[in-house]
Amino acid sequence: MTTQPPFDTQRLDALLEEEGVDALLVTSPHNLGYFLGGYRFVLYDKLDSVGLSRYSPFLGYVRGRADQSFYVGWGDEGWGVAADPIWPPEVRIESWTAEDAAATAARLLETRLGRDARVGIEKPYVSIDAFERLRAGLPEARFESSVILLDELRAIKTPEEIEAMTIGAEKVVEAMSLVFSSLEPGETTRELAERLRVHESQLGLEFHYCLIAAAPDANRAPSAQRLDRAAALSLDSGASYQGFVADIARMGVYGEPTQLQKELLAMVRRVQEAARAEVRAGALSAELMEAGRSAVEEMPWPERFNFVAHGMGRKAHEAPRLNQGKPPYPASHLDEPLAAGMVLSIETHVIDPEAGFVKLEDAVAVTAEGCEPLGDGGRDWNVRPEDA
Amino acid sequence: MTTQPPFDTQRLDALLEEEGVDALLVTSPHNLGYFLGGYRFVLYDKLDSVGLSRYSPFLGYVRGRADQSFYVGWGDEGWGVAADPIWPPEVRIESWTAEDAAATAARLLETRLGRDARVGIEKPYVSIDAFERLRAGLPEARFESSVILLDELRAIKTPEEIEAMTIGAEKVVEAMSLVFSSLEPGETTRELAERLRVHESQLGLEFHYCLIAAAPDANRAPSAQRLDRAAALSLDSGASYQGFVADIARMGVYGEPTQLQKELLAMVRRVQEAARAEVRAGALSAELMEAGRSAVEEMPWPERFNFVAHGMGRKAHEAPRLNQGKPPYPASHLDEPLAAGMVLSIETHVIDPEAGFVKLEDAVAVTAEGCEPLGDGGRDWNVRPEDA
Repeated sequence: MTTQPPFDTQRLDALLEEEGVDALLVTSPHNLGYFLGGYRFVLYDKLDSVGLSRYSPFLGYVRGRADQSFYVGWGDEGWGVAADPIWPPEVRIESWTAEDAAATAARLLETRLGRDARVGIEKPYVSIDAFERLRAGLPEARFESSVILLDELRAIKTPEEIEAMTIGAEKVVEAMSLVFSSLEPGETTRELAERLRVHESQLGLEFHYCLIAAAPDANRAPSAQRLDRAAALSLDSGASYQGFVADIARMGVYGEPTQLQKELLAMVRRVQEAARAEVRAGALSAELMEAGRSAVEEMPWPERFNFVAHGMGRKAHEAPRLNQGKPPYPASHLDEPLAAGMVLSIETHVIDPEAGFVKLEDAVAVTAEGCEPLGDGGRDWNVRPEDA
Repeated sequence: MTTQPPFDTQRLDALLEEEGVDALLVTSPHNLGYFLGGYRFVLYDKLDSVGLSRYSPFLGYVRGRADQSFYVGWGDEGWGVAADPIWPPEVRIESWTAEDAAATAARLLETRLGRDARVGIEKPYVSIDAFERLRAGLPEARFESSVILLDELRAIKTPEEIEAMTIGAEKVVEAMSLVFSSLEPGETTRELAERLRVHESQLGLEFHYCLIAAAPDANRAPSAQRLDRAAALSLDSGASYQGFVADIARMGVYGEPTQLQKELLAMVRRVQEAARAEVRAGALSAELMEAGRSAVEEMPWPERFNFVAHGMGRKAHEAPRLNQGKPPYPASHLDEPLAAGMVLSIETHVIDPEAGFVKLEDAVAVTAEGCEPLGDGGRDWNVRPEDA
């Protein structure tokens, strides 16, 4: 039986102290996975509707008192926690609705902290029916968003987590290689994306998505578009292994790549390498972003390129948050140093009128000296020989 | 380009009229699938975290004015609606956070209905950050839960939907047959559940879960438990095909089933048949529930049996709601007649100290004369011959 939290409670307590948060109620699949060492009740993991309600378990954590942690699961979740015991000392598996679970979580928090605590929640992952019960049960509590705090908490990966992310990335590369090596002109991008889904499943991955572009089109949603002979094919897929996202993009072609195709992918790789060269513990994130952008500026048509980078882990985009600046992707870590154990996804694409969408996306783990690539195979053209 | 709603707008308008609801904001994957004919943006379908926010599109429908419908998707969803065009006349693909999407949805509703409309929402599928923006944008609107109304709307399936559900059920049966025919004593239930997941993926299904019990244990969560030679194995899996859930349970064994195993499965089948015999359009749901319960009462140990039935479609449990009485499963249709096109899941299990968990779960579509089973294969013992 697992009796210890699988994460650094001192680090969490310090983050909570800094924000003045007394307790956390964790609800998102990615953060529950972090707090519970990957535990998730299989029955509702993927299909979360339960009758007229929705599966919505709560993990309660009181600052400085890991021994007072609790888990509120579902009425039939006894099977799950029997097969995979979890560490919180109090486990309530009696709820059948999100409201019931929230009412129980509020009651358990009240016995620990009284009624006027500051409680960190994940607003995007608390439904309004559950929140009505949280507020009713703790009318004097202040509920605050702890989404950023939780992202910070997960930013530095353990060696075991990096090992899982490495395996995941290698498996996505392998699945893509299987698709590329079996390309047939005339197949639709929908068929090819489905083939990748099946290969990823066979390799033990949980498939999330496949973006796919077949030249000259740069639309990346799987569609009825048919693959032309010698058309460049871009695959970009997210899949999870042991709860960690692998997000990889690779290029393939039926028959020998053209000179233009070779040059474009070489340019993309140059941008990727330029960014990667600046990755090391202690370096400012801004340096790697600047290196990638400068490399783009040296290209013959910088405006056709796009370069981004971001942290990755149990979510596809997480801390360190490096760029873009759109609201869900604030560039809030640019002036902070990278730390060993962070995992970065680095992506570059170019859109060419003839060769279409040419992209690489790679993951690297930050180390003291530089970085360690995860799943670096297949970064050249993956060629399906003609008449094979 | 699809320009017509793929559902009966008159029926929806009548339901909204009855409840006095002016407009709907649809957010759950199952109801968006219904309103948009299966459309879903592949990128965020399974992994819905987007940076610090969450993918949370809105479909707006104004009572009596299908032509004023709108869809609020994400900033990069242009690929998705280009590959699979959707019917709402107004499509906004500019949001990057749940808050932005909600603010846009509120604005679009206000231009159509003014500020004091009654708006039906799905409380379990609206996060509190989105709801804050809905309320801010429409401060005089009344937001009400339309979860039940939407379940009623989907209760009667079209022939095309039943066809998809039939294919889905047959594929789950086929995947289970592949697992049963390759059983090896000593395998863990976790390995077997993973094998089922892979087979379902290969057959084009979206795997949701596999509950698995290996006698004599009746715990159904996949675990490190190893399969004994000649132990009864129960598989119960949910998977989707074209957005519709197939939920099937079948039994298998390595070597010939024992006399006890044969008798138990025959008893389970007798309960299933008794309930099925009462299914026909116009019959009260209570009659089939009563028939199943009476059949259980005739068994040598009625207390070891469990019999349930429920509607099924884009959700595993939906209208008609027939039993259990737990809050998310109100038995609210017992005194209503069944209608042609409803799909029912009928489930019976018995727990025996020696043979373990013995279960069948089947789906049937209600017809004028009776019912049509979906995926009725493999309802006897699925035998893995010894020394095969």
